[in-house]
Amino acid sequence: MKAELINPFLLAMDNVLSTMAGMECTPGKARLKNTTSTKGQVTGIIGMTGSRVKGSVAISFTTSVILSITERILGEKQSTINSTVIDMVGELTNMVTGGAKKQLSEIGYEFNMSTPVIVSAPIHKIEHASNAPTIVVTFATESGNFFIETNFSS
Amino acid sequence: MKAELINPFLLAMDNVLSTMAGMECTPGKARLKNTTSTKGQVTGIIGMTGSRVKGSVAISFTTSVILSITERILGEKQSTINSTVIDMVGELTNMVTGGAKKQLSEIGYEFNMSTPVIVSAPIHKIEHASNAPTIVVTFATESGNFFIETNFSS
Repeated sequence: MKAELINPFLLAMDNVLSTMAGMECTPGKARLKNTTSTKGQVTGIIGMTGSRVKGSVAISFTTSVILSITERILGEKQSTINSTVIDMVGELTNMVTGGAKKQLSEIGYEFNMSTPVIVSAPIHKIEHASNAPTIVVTFATESGNFFIETNFSS
Repeated sequence: MKAELINPFLLAMDNVLSTMAGMECTPGKARLKNTTSTKGQVTGIIGMTGSRVKGSVAISFTTSVILSITERILGEKQSTINSTVIDMVGELTNMVTGGAKKQLSEIGYEFNMSTPVIVSAPIHKIEHASNAPTIVVTFATESGNFFIETNFSS
């Protein structure tokens, strides 16, 4: 998978968190995902269809970081992954993929996005059903880590 | 959500299971999903984008039924939700949504499909991030139940 398809998601994520939550995040290196496990407890999944490639994006948050993000954006403390937090994961997934879609359009990749699906479980496995590799980037924040997985195939 | 958008998935599911696995399934009534929980242990999720509506589809299998389906299709017994079973969920998700896409096209709804994402966990919650209602249909088989959730919004 080309880096040009991944970077827009990393930039959009950084942009959404800094502007919406006033939170800094530091992306690690993009790497091949070689396990089905994710370390997050709540994951936003969205499908993207395009004329050149199609794919799936999963943004998986540990409990600590999504509670912190939600509190920063809404100004209300959340103690568990409740419906407010799940809605926030859906909104973040939409905002990040929407921002990435715009950047991808500028480099010649047009996409349409499905509606997000949010999965939550203390431990869950995520597999992208495609022959293309899944690339994962770990983001570090002061409240813990989250993960962006992308899989695009032609 | 219109029944005309749901029925193609039910028909495609029945068709895939009968032709591929020689398995009969009986759909229950379509009902509003009023909880985030799913009763399945492995779920195929796919995004669909279209000019008139877009949405998300989740097909959630209990362990007993997906092990039986996989054994019937591949002729090899599987004892746990391993990579073979997860691949099968991806294939089934593609086949069912592909069959539904064809039927939907015939009634004037054109869709593109993303690649499926498969989530597995003993207990997991699934939420479709949309203002539209999520419709769920329970399918009964001799090996247990599975569930199709659809959410489409304009």
